Amino acid sequence: MKNPINQKEPNFQIDIEPIGKRVYAEPGETLLDAAQNAGIDIISLCGGAGICNSCKVRIIDGRVSEVTRNERTAFTPEEIASGFRLACKATILSNVKIDIPPESLSTPQRLQLEGQEFKAGLEFGKECVIRYYDLELNEPSLTSLESDLSRIKSALEKKGLMEVHCRFEILKNLSDLLRTQRWKVRTVIRYLLDDQHGEVVAVLPVGTPLYGLAVDVGTTKLAAYLVDLDTHDIVEKIGEMNPQIAFGEDVISRIAYCNEHSGGRDVLQKKLVSTINLMIEKMIKKRGIKLERIVECVVVGNTVMHHLFAGIPVKQLGLIPFVPAIADEMNIRACDICINIAKASYVYMPPNIAGYVGADHVSMVMSTRIHEKEGIHLAIDIGTNTEISLAAYGKLICCSCASGPAFEGAHIHHGMRAAAGAIERVKILNGEIRIATIGEKPAIGICGSGIIDAVAELYKEKIIDYRGVFVKKEFLIGIGTKHEGYELVSADFSGNGKSLIVTRNDINEIQLAKAAIRTGIDLLLQETGITYDKIDKFIIAGAFGSYINIRSAIIIGMFPPLPIDRFHQVGNAAGMGAVELLLSLKMRKLTTSFSRRMTYIELTTCPEFQQKFISAMYFPKVVDR
Amino acid sequence: MKNPINQKEPNFQIDIEPIGKRVYAEPGETLLDAAQNAGIDIISLCGGAGICNSCKVRIIDGRVSEVTRNERTAFTPEEIASGFRLACKATILSNVKIDIPPESLSTPQRLQLEGQEFKAGLEFGKECVIRYYDLELNEPSLTSLESDLSRIKSALEKKGLMEVHCRFEILKNLSDLLRTQRWKVRTVIRYLLDDQHGEVVAVLPVGTPLYGLAVDVGTTKLAAYLVDLDTHDIVEKIGEMNPQIAFGEDVISRIAYCNEHSGGRDVLQKKLVSTINLMIEKMIKKRGIKLERIVECVVVGNTVMHHLFAGIPVKQLGLIPFVPAIADEMNIRACDICINIAKASYVYMPPNIAGYVGADHVSMVMSTRIHEKEGIHLAIDIGTNTEISLAAYGKLICCSCASGPAFEGAHIHHGMRAAAGAIERVKILNGEIRIATIGEKPAIGICGSGIIDAVAELYKEKIIDYRGVFVKKEFLIGIGTKHEGYELVSADFSGNGKSLIVTRNDINEIQLAKAAIRTGIDLLLQETGITYDKIDKFIIAGAFGSYINIRSAIIIGMFPPLPIDRFHQVGNAAGMGAVELLLSLKMRKLTTSFSRRMTYIELTTCPEFQQKFISAMYFPKVVDR
Repeated sequence: MKNPINQKEPNFQIDIEPIGKRVYAEPGETLLDAAQNAGIDIISLCGGAGICNSCKVRIIDGRVSEVTRNERTAFTPEEIASGFRLACKATILSNVKIDIPPESLSTPQRLQLEGQEFKAGLEFGKECVIRYYDLELNEPSLTSLESDLSRIKSALEKKGLMEVHCRFEILKNLSDLLRTQRWKVRTVIRYLLDDQHGEVVAVLPVGTPLYGLAVDVGTTKLAAYLVDLDTHDIVEKIGEMNPQIAFGEDVISRIAYCNEHSGGRDVLQKKLVSTINLMIEKMIKKRGIKLERIVECVVVGNTVMHHLFAGIPVKQLGLIPFVPAIADEMNIRACDICINIAKASYVYMPPNIAGYVGADHVSMVMSTRIHEKEGIHLAIDIGTNTEISLAAYGKLICCSCASGPAFEGAHIHHGMRAAAGAIERVKILNGEIRIATIGEKPAIGICGSGIIDAVAELYKEKIIDYRGVFVKKEFLIGIGTKHEGYELVSADFSGNGKSLIVTRNDINEIQLAKAAIRTGIDLLLQETGITYDKIDKFIIAGAFGSYINIRSAIIIGMFPPLPIDRFHQVGNAAGMGAVELLLSLKMRKLTTSFSRRMTYIELTTCPEFQQKFISAMYFPKVVDR
Repeated sequence: MKNPINQKEPNFQIDIEPIGKRVYAEPGETLLDAAQNAGIDIISLCGGAGICNSCKVRIIDGRVSEVTRNERTAFTPEEIASGFRLACKATILSNVKIDIPPESLSTPQRLQLEGQEFKAGLEFGKECVIRYYDLELNEPSLTSLESDLSRIKSALEKKGLMEVHCRFEILKNLSDLLRTQRWKVRTVIRYLLDDQHGEVVAVLPVGTPLYGLAVDVGTTKLAAYLVDLDTHDIVEKIGEMNPQIAFGEDVISRIAYCNEHSGGRDVLQKKLVSTINLMIEKMIKKRGIKLERIVECVVVGNTVMHHLFAGIPVKQLGLIPFVPAIADEMNIRACDICINIAKASYVYMPPNIAGYVGADHVSMVMSTRIHEKEGIHLAIDIGTNTEISLAAYGKLICCSCASGPAFEGAHIHHGMRAAAGAIERVKILNGEIRIATIGEKPAIGICGSGIIDAVAELYKEKIIDYRGVFVKKEFLIGIGTKHEGYELVSADFSGNGKSLIVTRNDINEIQLAKAAIRTGIDLLLQETGITYDKIDKFIIAGAFGSYINIRSAIIIGMFPPLPIDRFHQVGNAAGMGAVELLLSLKMRKLTTSFSRRMTYIELTTCPEFQQKFISAMYFPKVVDR
């Protein structure tokens, strides 16, 4: 039935994935208009001219206008066939469902995505690590003289838990709590093996909500997630810099610090833990909850971060053959490493594979499920250290490459981390530079995704050659000075009154980093006798990995030139894996068996490593669109 | 063949049990002469006149002179038949083997006995709690990349240990140790269940000797034993006062202190632990060993001491129905309660039975094995709180009585603890007072065994009546003053220039204490329908229990008038039980099942308690010999 008051044409519904948001569009609007009007920041560098190719989206359902000429240039026929469009060129003709790839979104929008992505991937059974029981106990009397703890154990036995241990710390306030709560309490059990064996990790008043904490300890960045253990929702999250940066920006320099300073390991451990504690404090303050309600924690990190977090020596990780002190999963008591959560709770750390393939990579790979899928899957977690896993023909192999901190903005002349005002996208359109900054703030520096874009554009525009050498000097400023470089933003337009440039050295840093990654990919493929074009799914994890422009990464040769739709940017999958490991006992068991199946390849011992690395330093000869 | 040089008559060998010492006697010497010449201090108050009956011994084998008239007065015909003699009256006629009851020995000699007694009772299989393996591991290489810990686990698997956990603390120095020790290490495993499951609690250089620590935490006194885990010998022992005395001399006042002072429980816990740490320090310093070599600890104590040691609330132990927070055995990590032994080691605490029958009593009863023997056995541990267990017809029942600190010398006018100069034996011979002091030092006070003797002698000599009232005033000094009492030592002969007396109040304190104990014994017997004369073995444990004169205890009515040979003074059996529990896994398992079989009787809820207690205050009408 027609609405008699509103006579104008009806609005169209636009369902936007993976955000899961529904917006409305007036007839005649483009997808870009509709999204931007609804507050969704799709990146657009050319102002809707259809030339920057930043605003790509994929139509899942519904009708939009015909594919334009610009789009035929922007996409391959396969991509167009699978629904790829530039949002600025697609006019809405019906209700539509679209998917926005993370790289088309501005950083704050991408950050919002993470929790959503996680929810979609959730597949728990009833096998939770933490389960609670609201118990009503018999009050002691002269004819009922069992101990306080025995009462709890008997009540749990009636619920089928035959073997329940009790953390010693619980006893410190159990007797008082039972009496003030009039013998009605919520008993929190942590399961390690099966449904009959558990450990009491908290006894709280009935109705107390319970939380878990997942922490991803990166060499550079820390991410922490506060998870509601009832709804399985991430209710708070927070990122911080790893404070150990002050003692060395990569794992090698942190190991060196520990070797050279007696007590150095303790210093690094305490710095890290106190920052994590601050992150916890911020989240619980925001949420208005007490520490005691966080009853389980998962920490993932590369092997060096894993060892430094747990206060385990790292010296042997810096010496051939780089063996970890421990590879098995760990269940450490939170209080043993001074993590400020419930006194009797545990920190679970997934297994490490090798000295340079750690628990964070295991967590990431688990969350992507590549080990249980058909076809050939490659999963890569780009960071200061980059880990790569390849699942092919039931085999699982992995390696590690020292990509360095350039993608974090370190060692880059005007580098900065991905924060407000960082240039995150660069495009040279008809000789004119277009940039996008995080938060749309005036530019004050350039972050990893920005520098990759810049290098790719400079190469595409032939301003630098395949060696990374500036060949069109007329585009440079400060020639002959220390500050010789290609200017992205002039001093007049920058946010700090400085001219923001890309130097030869910056390009070289990116060459080193991308060469390390590509060498790893190629050697893994070689090990299994697969050529890159056989890869069905190329999964890119890590905060940085979600932000990069895949095309730019292909142009500079960091990634092999696969069709764009085979790439999947999955965000902080290590963190998401940590959240799943926080919740699911099944996942923990799978992780243990998975880590035993994984074969580690030590790249530096491959005879071709050196030569492959050197040739990977160059940019690929054929420049793609 | 006769020795041609030494023509005089041969010496006789005297084997002395339970000390296990062999001495030699000239023909014609008495057993007392022979023992004293060899440095064994048998108490003799009458100087060998055969009238003080202090020097009783039992002939196990060999010939001595005929029983004298004095001895027929001193012993019952049954005792004589079973070999009892006064050492001063028995002349040696052949090689002889004798047994000296603890009460016939001076305090320092008795203390020396404890380890010996323990050795005699040792009955382990191969089921040790702590076992070690000297491992030779494969060095890592580029073709052998397992973690350091995996190498240890694999080596242990080859030895049949399939499930080995590793204490997190081990990892803190494992990697360095393996490399400095060139992959040869001693791995120390703690067993909890069976031979296939263990936990690595220490990794040390090959050849490192290992020790264990057993601690008996009494309300008043602490005893610690350092045990060689290879030989099972007690290599050091030490006693100290419980520093919590400053916060209340009995358990009730300590509970009150915790209730009245916020943080009081922590204060008491820290005081106790720091004293135990000092005791450890003294022992290891004397022995010249490192803390890290002590790899297991057992702590026993009554339930309040147990809870206060572990830092568990005691408030509910002071409220009807006096239930413990935990009754099950505990395995706490030493570092969780700041006991300074090897970082990854555990403290095992045996189960508690009830609020006032604790792990120390369990440990004591276990060491006496009354639960596995035929007949009717009563085991009593006398202290500020006295626990009694009765094993009869396969039934095990126990109770607790508040005997108070009088036996520790507290609340006694010239009371002191059993230290040098304390009067430990009193005898009135023909109206003349004979005393023996600890260490044969001039008297400066009177300890528990001395005051029991004194009260018994005053009653026997009819200086006090059955109510404890002085009836022969002519023997008193200071009549009408606060210091009215019976003088044991005059100011001229005492070690501190003071006249040492026994007051009416002292007698009353002893009456309260002995009434509490006797009421407990009688109510336990009543519960099982047994009369006291049916008791086959009356085992007296506790340091104080070993020192008392059984006859005096019978005279004042503290113990039932059983034949003297049914009494067995077993020293600090709780401490000895703790040592056994330190070593034997079998004992730990038995203790768990035993504690579940034990039935606790709450005396204060028995309807007859009050009346029985009041009548037990009086001294028994019939005065025995």
